[in-house]
Amino acid sequence: MTYEFGGGKPDPGSFPYDEIVEATRKMMAAEGDQALTYGEAMGYRGLRELLAQKHEALEGLKLDPDNILLANGSLHALSLVVSTFVDVGDPLICESPSFSGTLVMMRRHGADLHGVPIDEQGMIPEALREELGKLKAAGRPAKLIYTMPTFHNPAGPTAPIERRREILAIAREFDTVILEDDAYGDLRFEGEFVPSLYALDETGESVIRAGTVSKILGAGMRLGWLVAPKSLLPTLASFNFGGGVAPFTSRVATYYMREHMLTHIPKLIEVYRGKRDAMLQGLWEGLEGTDVEISKPAGGFFIWIKLPTGTDLEKLAAAAREAKVAYVPGNAFMPNGGGERYIRLAYSYESEENCHAGARHLAAAIQQAKA
Amino acid sequence: MTYEFGGGKPDPGSFPYDEIVEATRKMMAAEGDQALTYGEAMGYRGLRELLAQKHEALEGLKLDPDNILLANGSLHALSLVVSTFVDVGDPLICESPSFSGTLVMMRRHGADLHGVPIDEQGMIPEALREELGKLKAAGRPAKLIYTMPTFHNPAGPTAPIERRREILAIAREFDTVILEDDAYGDLRFEGEFVPSLYALDETGESVIRAGTVSKILGAGMRLGWLVAPKSLLPTLASFNFGGGVAPFTSRVATYYMREHMLTHIPKLIEVYRGKRDAMLQGLWEGLEGTDVEISKPAGGFFIWIKLPTGTDLEKLAAAAREAKVAYVPGNAFMPNGGGERYIRLAYSYESEENCHAGARHLAAAIQQAKA
Repeated sequence: MTYEFGGGKPDPGSFPYDEIVEATRKMMAAEGDQALTYGEAMGYRGLRELLAQKHEALEGLKLDPDNILLANGSLHALSLVVSTFVDVGDPLICESPSFSGTLVMMRRHGADLHGVPIDEQGMIPEALREELGKLKAAGRPAKLIYTMPTFHNPAGPTAPIERRREILAIAREFDTVILEDDAYGDLRFEGEFVPSLYALDETGESVIRAGTVSKILGAGMRLGWLVAPKSLLPTLASFNFGGGVAPFTSRVATYYMREHMLTHIPKLIEVYRGKRDAMLQGLWEGLEGTDVEISKPAGGFFIWIKLPTGTDLEKLAAAAREAKVAYVPGNAFMPNGGGERYIRLAYSYESEENCHAGARHLAAAIQQAKA
Repeated sequence: MTYEFGGGKPDPGSFPYDEIVEATRKMMAAEGDQALTYGEAMGYRGLRELLAQKHEALEGLKLDPDNILLANGSLHALSLVVSTFVDVGDPLICESPSFSGTLVMMRRHGADLHGVPIDEQGMIPEALREELGKLKAAGRPAKLIYTMPTFHNPAGPTAPIERRREILAIAREFDTVILEDDAYGDLRFEGEFVPSLYALDETGESVIRAGTVSKILGAGMRLGWLVAPKSLLPTLASFNFGGGVAPFTSRVATYYMREHMLTHIPKLIEVYRGKRDAMLQGLWEGLEGTDVEISKPAGGFFIWIKLPTGTDLEKLAAAAREAKVAYVPGNAFMPNGGGERYIRLAYSYESEENCHAGARHLAAAIQQAKA
């Protein structure tokens, strides 16, 4: 038995296998000639229209399909923004911790990363203002503020609306564009919906928001998107080298989502809530009495753990390997080093049973690893 | 009636609609869980193995699947190479004329393009040596040599083996990597197969070759690849931001190609040869007696025309618009300006009948446009 708590892979038991085949059949009969040739630079209009409807149905947010640009997954979508705003050596603000995949991508673009700490409400406004001010004073203003205000990966917090408004005001004060990563927003287990930074931005010019079908339909489609001010879209699209994003896949996803999305998402929420609870249960049981800190995210795929005082990291790695439990060490999520005291677990992939059992094994490994 | 001779769109009448649906069904039953989750950084191994078999079956070229990196179409594949080798301002050699899409992509990367002229055997070795020498003497050696030695887009020539060996020797002399674009090599209408630069490179270190399924299966799959020295692959792959290339699409294409590729390609060759001949016939009939020069490519999608002396370009544009014939003006293919005397026609998309009729209309427009 192995426990794959490393990467944030979606639950394979929830994949709509038959429905995807059926969507492919219907789509090919209706518009196969368009699916198999070059597409629009902005991506298939049918999917952009459906995404506009999705945002209205799930968030009450009215979008124009012409504000939406498709990409090959949300990391690719994020990379189009970084290509547009960041030249080698340019400073860029992100959270500390932040999503490891984005950090790797940003470093590959040569960005100079400046991490801003978070608390239980997300990015800390005073720390953001201070960092923006320092960079401005040095004559090197930040080119972007990258943030994940909803179900933060890895740490979990969701910023309440007041916090979001503060972040927006600071970004406007420094005339800096916000790149909002919203990969998990549809998977809320409890609590009130909070509007996105994009929805709260009254100027319509300060926020670019990235989304993905990876969490609701399967990551193998490689379909993501940006919602962005119209003035920026031609430049963003110009960094997408490839003859239009996936005309075939976009249409398969659209035909599937038109029929099934609104019933599929509530099922996924049940599935992932159950897995989160099972993993939390295992961790709480196994680590009682220690000073461990364990996040309880209200949505998404991940739990963030601050290890008990005195945990020996090498001993932990060895004991977890022995127990066949995979996790990601905290330093992968740190833009400027540190994070050794943390680990991230994904409960998305394994079954509830395995989430519980694997968490117990990991807790035992942590207990063994006391220095 | 309109005649779409502009973009190089594949023939929609040859798309294997039912076979793609059937391939999707079989694939989802066998490995749907892998198709709908994140994939390998190098791309689906099954497709890389099939591509190795394809190169052996069609070219006698033995490849290791581990030398193949998948990408979102061949333009994306080419862009990974440019991202790897070229920083803003770096000089890069290409043919003059060259494929317009690649030129746009290279300019977007900030490359300083240096065009080398071609003749009826492709890139001219003496001109290549001279340009490489000039750049080296200026302390700014070229970072890449981009060439399309087989069924050149737009101009048509295919370099014979001796010419290829000369180009390779010069690239080695200047220690410069060749980026070989081979989008159309499988679609040879007549004449002898010529091995690729990649196959002829005895060092195994001098050539990166790009290919695509767009011309044999449909461009809407957005699947291309690089064949490259193993030492370069991790860096090339690191510029592919997106969680592994299209796990779903790669598998659909693989299941389709396993069963049908070797019988489908000969059918496509018949289709495109017929279209080329119909278009050439229309052009020859309509432009007899002028000093027009019309290419006769031995494969691929395009005809390149040097307009008769004294053609008025504005009159031609107006007359062609009136006749509803779309073409691409020659300057789109020029890395350093010029090309006004040329136009490119694609015979790939329209039926044989339309290729002939549209060519007659265009010829009449050219005749009308005498200054």
